[in-house]
Amino acid sequence: MVVIVRPDVPQEKIDHLVRWLKDKQLVVREYQGQQQTVLGLIGDTKPVDIDMLKSLDIVESVADMTDTFKASNRKIHPDDTVIRIGPGKGPAIGGGNFALIAGPCSVESREQILFVAGEVKAAGANFLRGGAFKPRTSPYDFQGLGSEGIDLLVQAREATGLPIVTELMDHRSLELFLEKEVDIIQVGARNTQNYDLLKELGKVKSAILLKRGLAGTIKELLMSAEYIMANGNENVILCERGIRTYEYAYTRNTLDLSAVPVLKALTHLPVVVDPSHGTGRADLVPSMSLAAVAAGADGIIVEVHNDPQKALSDGAQSLTPGAFRDLALKIGKIREALQ
Amino acid sequence: MVVIVRPDVPQEKIDHLVRWLKDKQLVVREYQGQQQTVLGLIGDTKPVDIDMLKSLDIVESVADMTDTFKASNRKIHPDDTVIRIGPGKGPAIGGGNFALIAGPCSVESREQILFVAGEVKAAGANFLRGGAFKPRTSPYDFQGLGSEGIDLLVQAREATGLPIVTELMDHRSLELFLEKEVDIIQVGARNTQNYDLLKELGKVKSAILLKRGLAGTIKELLMSAEYIMANGNENVILCERGIRTYEYAYTRNTLDLSAVPVLKALTHLPVVVDPSHGTGRADLVPSMSLAAVAAGADGIIVEVHNDPQKALSDGAQSLTPGAFRDLALKIGKIREALQ
Amino acid sequence: MVVIVRPDVPQEKIDHLVRWLKDKQLVVREYQGQQQTVLGLIGDTKPVDIDMLKSLDIVESVADMTDTFKASNRKIHPDDTVIRIGPGKGPAIGGGNFALIAGPCSVESREQILFVAGEVKAAGANFLRGGAFKPRTSPYDFQGLGSEGIDLLVQAREATGLPIVTELMDHRSLELFLEKEVDIIQVGARNTQNYDLLKELGKVKSAILLKRGLAGTIKELLMSAEYIMANGNENVILCERGIRTYEYAYTRNTLDLSAVPVLKALTHLPVVVDPSHGTGRADLVPSMSLAAVAAGADGIIVEVHNDPQKALSDGAQSLTPGAFRDLALKIGKIREALQ
Amino acid sequence: MVVIVRPDVPQEKIDHLVRWLKDKQLVVREYQGQQQTVLGLIGDTKPVDIDMLKSLDIVESVADMTDTFKASNRKIHPDDTVIRIGPGKGPAIGGGNFALIAGPCSVESREQILFVAGEVKAAGANFLRGGAFKPRTSPYDFQGLGSEGIDLLVQAREATGLPIVTELMDHRSLELFLEKEVDIIQVGARNTQNYDLLKELGKVKSAILLKRGLAGTIKELLMSAEYIMANGNENVILCERGIRTYEYAYTRNTLDLSAVPVLKALTHLPVVVDPSHGTGRADLVPSMSLAAVAAGADGIIVEVHNDPQKALSDGAQSLTPGAFRDLALKIGKIREALQ
Repeated sequence: MVVIVRPDVPQEKIDHLVRWLKDKQLVVREYQGQQQTVLGLIGDTKPVDIDMLKSLDIVESVADMTDTFKASNRKIHPDDTVIRIGPGKGPAIGGGNFALIAGPCSVESREQILFVAGEVKAAGANFLRGGAFKPRTSPYDFQGLGSEGIDLLVQAREATGLPIVTELMDHRSLELFLEKEVDIIQVGARNTQNYDLLKELGKVKSAILLKRGLAGTIKELLMSAEYIMANGNENVILCERGIRTYEYAYTRNTLDLSAVPVLKALTHLPVVVDPSHGTGRADLVPSMSLAAVAAGADGIIVEVHNDPQKALSDGAQSLTPGAFRDLALKIGKIREALQ
Repeated sequence: MVVIVRPDVPQEKIDHLVRWLKDKQLVVREYQGQQQTVLGLIGDTKPVDIDMLKSLDIVESVADMTDTFKASNRKIHPDDTVIRIGPGKGPAIGGGNFALIAGPCSVESREQILFVAGEVKAAGANFLRGGAFKPRTSPYDFQGLGSEGIDLLVQAREATGLPIVTELMDHRSLELFLEKEVDIIQVGARNTQNYDLLKELGKVKSAILLKRGLAGTIKELLMSAEYIMANGNENVILCERGIRTYEYAYTRNTLDLSAVPVLKALTHLPVVVDPSHGTGRADLVPSMSLAAVAAGADGIIVEVHNDPQKALSDGAQSLTPGAFRDLALKIGKIREALQ
Repeated sequence: MVVIVRPDVPQEKIDHLVRWLKDKQLVVREYQGQQQTVLGLIGDTKPVDIDMLKSLDIVESVADMTDTFKASNRKIHPDDTVIRIGPGKGPAIGGGNFALIAGPCSVESREQILFVAGEVKAAGANFLRGGAFKPRTSPYDFQGLGSEGIDLLVQAREATGLPIVTELMDHRSLELFLEKEVDIIQVGARNTQNYDLLKELGKVKSAILLKRGLAGTIKELLMSAEYIMANGNENVILCERGIRTYEYAYTRNTLDLSAVPVLKALTHLPVVVDPSHGTGRADLVPSMSLAAVAAGADGIIVEVHNDPQKALSDGAQSLTPGAFRDLALKIGKIREALQ
Repeated sequence: MVVIVRPDVPQEKIDHLVRWLKDKQLVVREYQGQQQTVLGLIGDTKPVDIDMLKSLDIVESVADMTDTFKASNRKIHPDDTVIRIGPGKGPAIGGGNFALIAGPCSVESREQILFVAGEVKAAGANFLRGGAFKPRTSPYDFQGLGSEGIDLLVQAREATGLPIVTELMDHRSLELFLEKEVDIIQVGARNTQNYDLLKELGKVKSAILLKRGLAGTIKELLMSAEYIMANGNENVILCERGIRTYEYAYTRNTLDLSAVPVLKALTHLPVVVDPSHGTGRADLVPSMSLAAVAAGADGIIVEVHNDPQKALSDGAQSLTPGAFRDLALKIGKIREALQ
């Protein structure tokens, strides 16, 4: 249930109403927007008399919220969520702030990550991505550098000032991620519905980049965000990364760009797009990145490698630094055209 | 097999080679590009001695063409195909010429089609679409106005000068379409693999807008184009219109925009996008249209209705004339930004 | 709307009610079951006063029928449809009669079809299948023997007594099919929604084997049957033949056997299964055939070839005559066990 | 690489060869079948000279194994794996031993689980299933009784003698599962690619029932089994439970029964089928269970509830005890017919 409070109601009156609602065993999410305050009621609302609520002089209107996603629902948080990364003047995502996240699939060496970090920063990226813990389909394949990879990412952050984005596969690594102050913790497509992991991420304050499942629905993505938010962490960034379809001959996945405007309508959370995994082909990354921007994405996350042919993972879908530079320029032009 | 002819070879020498190849029971497609002449050999090339071919002084290089699509293959036709509609100064599609095709799902009445045609023309559309023969899932639903609908489209063309695009369901109607000079004959998603229909369309000269099947692969779309081209009609426009996936809760289909750059790389034929059927939702059409343009489409085909709520078919996915006008403006800006 | 008539009501009273309903512009399907008469009303039922209908002394009950499929709906035809093929003592399909349909993908020569027909008959098949008009993805591939293939099938029928099943791709061939008395006319997966073809098949009396679309839904299959039935032909056999999914590495399609019990609940029409196209692999055909029988199918249609390795089409999914003989024995045992 | 050893070679000679291969940094899986010994070499086999290997007098043949799944591959373990549950005369799965696993979706109370356990045992089940830790899409839904549920399962095991099958969601619960001696630990469809969890399960000896992912491929299922086996646990049972497709109107998932014979050909591990989740409809469970048996499954896992209408989860797909009894009888008949 959603309660819209009239403008100019004193906060103490709102607090009083919230206390009364909480006594009914409801979770109350209070959102103070630019225009007005919205109360989102989560839980069993049957004990609440809607007509009585509507008749209160501080209440403007009351609406049902039958959607199963609650905390992430735009109905109870009409404005875009803006997630600021790092203290002070760090970059932000959402509400008009665009995240250009770039870097190699896997952190491979100190030289590699420092070089790529420098290149993508020079091209205009405002975040550095890189995998240290890698979820590989085969147990016999390279599994990432692990904690050493995290250390190298931290060095690249120190060298360039770029906040870092890297994947967490298991909650036993969470302490390390917090200690190293990983700026954005990524949940990969294979763990989107690993609910125990999501619950742990709900207990921290770090920004979480939550990828859509390999063949996950839009609703499942929102419900997974809900697992994080219901446990206390509001800093969730959603990521479209391509879905599994029958069309496999020319693309690794089918990038579902319509998910961008669909999600922007349903939720206040930022939405970014991963055209690298979404297509699996470096030659398609530029056009699909531009399309993502035109579709209204709050950012893109792109694989860039110093030498794609020799990458330890996902070389076929990695841009060279030069190709990334060209792309960043075009993204700027499209963003300008859309204003 | 693809034979690249050296620049500046006199045509009579090329003709001689072509005659020799045809004697081997091969179909030879000769393409005179801006840079050079390319010969595409279709059929059983085993009787041809590749080394002998390569050694000819008029031949620059010879390459294999194992793709099953031949006539539509960019390898034997490196430049974009440009399809000019109508005599003289009619609009063109492909090679930088953008088709903005708009109009109602179904032609419903004289007033309706004339009104919508006027509106979309004023907004910048250069083609008018409208359904007269409608492939409906249920035999009990409205099946379109049939030949009367074609007549009304012709009147709208006379009134606005816009060339018309409309669907052909059965080759028994082809004579009517030719007599009325339908400018672009559409093959719908349910008939993409109706090979006998495609063969008939190969015998005419009209432009054909060929939609991808309901759950058709990119390769199947190319092979269906091949059925038309192998029978003699080169004027084929390909259309991405969304594919069937497990994600159905929020969109009617999943618009596969990556098909645009994939197709542009594989074939020289123009590629347009239908965001109306691709999403099924009017509120998603603008963002997905812009994304299609950014992805490199040669045009879009959009449903516009005077009163979407009362449309006899597909109202939920139809734009109002006003929304279409806004969209056309933004498309112009994106196209400019991409230059 | 469905009207259940009380038992033992004289026919003239029913006729009177039917006339009255037809006057309301409704199509009335009258079904005389073993227990009682059921009237199915198709069209706009708003002008009919339900309470009045219920109060009639000849009416036992009235129920809504919101399903979009009407003529094929089991609600207005509670017993299984049994389709008898050929005059007199020909085999039947449905209502406990099992169709074991076997033969080559393509008719290739007189020797081949006569040999395979003899083999499958000896093994227990009661129908012969064989393709004469072949819908091939590529225009450059073998397209079937055409009318010559039909003649060869007729010869095989004469030699073995087996009724023949073969695919019609275009209504221009329908006259030939009728003249040659093709026993069951197959509509292939690419033409399942070729509505103009379905309408033509509604005007004849031949049995129609209607395949599910390449990625068709169960409802679309029923709606396509509806196109045939609404035009007058009740002899429709539905065929599950595998659907297109993301799982392509090991099977050509994903055979959806749950479609069998789903369809048997929704419709009175017989349902057969094609495990050859459903899997694309001869080694999987036996187990999936047995599974189809256990799932309740009214028959299976299986590709059998004298020399699968040399088949002009679909060799990889064709059984040898010996493998088919083993399968037929096991099918008999499973059918016995289920009784 | 696969090395087939000649029959009657003394073990010490085999040991010698194995030591030599391990010195090349290879993992060597030695399988002593009924007919002969097979060595499976996992890792980088480039340093091994194939011709030299072939020339050894103890070697019969050497074959490539390019498949990415190794330990689960039937090529290096030609006979079916038989997994015996519990000490002494406990039931087994695989190699002709059929597992009839039944019980409620969720353990709800002592009375419920004891009642259902008694009923399914009486009907012929040889395993009891029940969920204690429940992976629910919504954080606001019933999440299972947790460790209390495990205790109740243990009581039901004591009362009936049936080994128990229940889902593990997080490795932090593994100690509890081991302490309570859960007989078969289930990995649910959402955790099929939770590799850190799989690695932990590789370190124990319990039998693992590994479900195919929500939209997982057959190969991914095998690779996940590989994660468990590569870490030391060979007791893996694979489970087909329906895949996500575009067909959602009538079934919750599309049960891919062809996965059964496909898997039986590729791997030596037992394969069971879950028709409850596979269809989501109790009325389809019997026919699809019989189909699974006919397709060659080594068992089925079925939801049975004392009062499906009131079940806390998955009521719509749960059989009543009576319906399960009928099904068990029919399964017996089909199994007999197939012998």
